[in-house]
Amino acid sequence: MAPLSKNKIKYIHSLEQKKIRKEERVFLAEGPKLVGDLLEYFPCRFLAATSLWLQSHPNIYAGEIAEVSQEELSRASLLKTPQQVLAILEQPQYTLTPDIARHSLCLLDDVQDPGNMGTIIRLADWFGIEDIICSQNTVDVYNPKTVQATMGGIARVRVHYTSLPDFIRSQGKEIPVFGTFLDGQNMYEQPLAANGLIVMGNEGNGIGKEVEALINRKLYIPNYPQGQETSESLNVAIATAVICAEFRRQAAWK
Amino acid sequence: MAPLSKNKIKYIHSLEQKKIRKEERVFLAEGPKLVGDLLEYFPCRFLAATSLWLQSHPNIYAGEIAEVSQEELSRASLLKTPQQVLAILEQPQYTLTPDIARHSLCLLDDVQDPGNMGTIIRLADWFGIEDIICSQNTVDVYNPKTVQATMGGIARVRVHYTSLPDFIRSQGKEIPVFGTFLDGQNMYEQPLAANGLIVMGNEGNGIGKEVEALINRKLYIPNYPQGQETSESLNVAIATAVICAEFRRQAAWK
Repeated sequence: MAPLSKNKIKYIHSLEQKKIRKEERVFLAEGPKLVGDLLEYFPCRFLAATSLWLQSHPNIYAGEIAEVSQEELSRASLLKTPQQVLAILEQPQYTLTPDIARHSLCLLDDVQDPGNMGTIIRLADWFGIEDIICSQNTVDVYNPKTVQATMGGIARVRVHYTSLPDFIRSQGKEIPVFGTFLDGQNMYEQPLAANGLIVMGNEGNGIGKEVEALINRKLYIPNYPQGQETSESLNVAIATAVICAEFRRQAAWK
Repeated sequence: MAPLSKNKIKYIHSLEQKKIRKEERVFLAEGPKLVGDLLEYFPCRFLAATSLWLQSHPNIYAGEIAEVSQEELSRASLLKTPQQVLAILEQPQYTLTPDIARHSLCLLDDVQDPGNMGTIIRLADWFGIEDIICSQNTVDVYNPKTVQATMGGIARVRVHYTSLPDFIRSQGKEIPVFGTFLDGQNMYEQPLAANGLIVMGNEGNGIGKEVEALINRKLYIPNYPQGQETSESLNVAIATAVICAEFRRQAAWK
């Protein structure tokens, strides 16, 4: 086992930058639960762990393994409280096929916050949404904060980046395209399809004009009691969860 | 108008500490949208803003007002991208009355993440939950990250801290006490009450043993498709949202 060199620590920290992650086609994951989950799905280029963790995981495959002290791990880690193990994993390559919208899909239009992105991937995993299509300006799925917030969901949910207007247009007019708007229809009073595209917008600006023009089913998440003064909106991950739950309820338990 | 002294900047930064906020009975809020909202609800001890913001808000009441340059604001701010105005506001004092459970209530058992806490307050505001009862070890509602994440919800949702077991016991046996568990009943197949207590647990450990023993309606948020391998859980704010939405749907749109 190699020791943890200064250069390696520098390299690990450089993976906070999207540019470096993209060039190297890797991403960083930390903590025994997350790394344990992801090692089953992604080839591991490098792994640094305490002797305790390594002893309880004798059959790890990684390009390089470093046994580190808690103090060395702290220097390498991006977390406030580093936990036993960190891994550099290979980014998967997914293909966006035209027939992808046979299933319910979530489309993200410029979501910016890494934590929101990770939380959306985690809930997509819970609600059986296998693909998320993102506009090119959406936050990178391999941002370390996003990876941590997915809690392993990143292993099962495929995230694609493309032009949303082009993607929606490629799907044919019979595919319902849903989005939430303050002047939309109460989602509890609308039949929601078992397939279709669900568009969620940017934290501050909502859904962009070009994408909005392609939405043919405008929905509204009703507040309660209706008409009462309240927050003007829900957090984008919260809104995504409430909508996806309602799609699944109507499909399975209506 | 007073200039922004070094001591004042130091004081603002000290409000990151719960101990200081508690002693001073104040909290910090930043940004034109949030500060604009909160000034209508909480007395303002101190306000620092750019001349542009002050010009467009001629009728501000505050114990002290400082006109600051963008650079001075940056030094005072706790945000990565400071925005025009920050305010030190007085903490409200709420009374926890015994008849509070006539309405639906949310109880938080040791939720730790300031962002989750703020997001829960924001969604409680959306879903008409007027009071949140927190265990003593729950993160402080006046943590600056929490205040920012409420997006103004902190003005309308009253947050109380007390012993959850004592509070639940004080409510009488006819009040339903809901909580989510992996072995609970599918929440879509259960009649949910218009009033009652909804307990949400800590991010890592869930609901504590003593509180769990007092829960008489165990619920489960079904994943989809059921039985498929998925994340083991939802983020606590996401779970709170999905449950509160279902309570409101059953009350208003069933």
